[in-house]
Amino acid sequence: MSADAGDQAAPAFILVRPQLGENIGMVARAMANFGLADLRLIGPRDGWPNPAAGPAAAGADWILERARLFDSIADAVTDRHRVYATTVRPRGMMKETMTPRYAAGLIHALAGNGMGAAIMFGPERSGLETEEVAMADAIVTIPVNPGFGSLNLAQAALVCAYEWRQAWDRTPDTVLGGDHGGPARREALDGLVEHLADELKRRNYFRPEHREPVMRQTLRSMLQRPGYSEQEVRTLRGVVRYLSKPPGNGSPYPPDDDS
Amino acid sequence: MSADAGDQAAPAFILVRPQLGENIGMVARAMANFGLADLRLIGPRDGWPNPAAGPAAAGADWILERARLFDSIADAVTDRHRVYATTVRPRGMMKETMTPRYAAGLIHALAGNGMGAAIMFGPERSGLETEEVAMADAIVTIPVNPGFGSLNLAQAALVCAYEWRQAWDRTPDTVLGGDHGGPARREALDGLVEHLADELKRRNYFRPEHREPVMRQTLRSMLQRPGYSEQEVRTLRGVVRYLSKPPGNGSPYPPDDDS
Repeated sequence: MSADAGDQAAPAFILVRPQLGENIGMVARAMANFGLADLRLIGPRDGWPNPAAGPAAAGADWILERARLFDSIADAVTDRHRVYATTVRPRGMMKETMTPRYAAGLIHALAGNGMGAAIMFGPERSGLETEEVAMADAIVTIPVNPGFGSLNLAQAALVCAYEWRQAWDRTPDTVLGGDHGGPARREALDGLVEHLADELKRRNYFRPEHREPVMRQTLRSMLQRPGYSEQEVRTLRGVVRYLSKPPGNGSPYPPDDDS
Repeated sequence: MSADAGDQAAPAFILVRPQLGENIGMVARAMANFGLADLRLIGPRDGWPNPAAGPAAAGADWILERARLFDSIADAVTDRHRVYATTVRPRGMMKETMTPRYAAGLIHALAGNGMGAAIMFGPERSGLETEEVAMADAIVTIPVNPGFGSLNLAQAALVCAYEWRQAWDRTPDTVLGGDHGGPARREALDGLVEHLADELKRRNYFRPEHREPVMRQTLRSMLQRPGYSEQEVRTLRGVVRYLSKPPGNGSPYPPDDDS
């Protein structure tokens, strides 16, 4: 089992009357992917343990091994401070209905105050019964295409687990990858723009003459926007230098080290 | 097929060398749930159409029927302006690596400028090859538990489709459900608090006397925080009135209409 920063304060996932062992395994897999581990079962149709769960868990065996069986929702949530029920569509109930993203924020806030939450999922075919939903403090409904809402148990659990992790995971929105190294210093970029413009000027590229400033600005914009790295700027300088030469294998030397 | 507000400007999902027809169907199902419809296939292992795809699509047949087969990534993206490649882990490539949420925002922004995007998914077992990733403008990596990253093809597609929808779906974060009707006017709440305090005062609840203001404040806080509706305030007034009566079936009448 992998330790995870959020484990202590993570929500329990409660499967109410799940039918297929395979789906229990898929839920465990979804939980493991996002660092959850507390799985609770109420009345699994085919008993527990269920041999079909293991293969579907794809390695998240520790979650299945630690899964706990309860007789009722009330028993399963005694240690929880807030309980959320997932439903496909909002019910006409006197309950708040929220997105999984909003619920994830609330669960994270509860955890920050030392309180635990649970998210309930109903059986595959029918979902939670009204009296089961009534045991929850609020309803979680995943926003789907109104013309085609067909998320199964494991998919609903995946979205809820995913949103829980996104509420605290510090992965930056975007990072420059690998050898990219980030944009070059302006000095290097300026050198490239001047080098290119000089070679073009020698060939009467800037015509009519009074348009030279605007045309230089266009070239600068095009070369500036991509955020080329120092290495990429060096590559482009090599390209400009080679394009400026007469064709043919005039030089006995390979491209030098700034190409 | 269901029409959907975002269809015109929605990204294409490209499956590169998918192995199992069932997974192609599951991807179609995930797409349909979030209002996507443009599925493109490159070199599906078992040919196309694949009879295993239909049952797994769970009704999203129109996506499978319209799925298009291409010979190469280049052919599959000719009409696209930006192409994203999903990978399990960041590669050491000179590419930006971003979360699906951030990518969804960019794709939505592109669409707002009339431009189309594509998201590529690699084969089940191996993921995209380096030279396939190189065809993309940026890499999308789903933030998972570093100790257990095991999302399959359909799960990755589900998260990307889900995030795309969340980027524009106007479902409010939270709504009061069904008959709740929202918090009562303050006048109704004040009436309840006074009614309760008066009945308590008649029974010498406020002791020592100088603590009465603080104790009233505590009661008000407790009754104010839940945001009880007009109907719930009436129910509570009935409860207070009945608790204030002597026990026994003293009244021949059922609770009156404000109970």
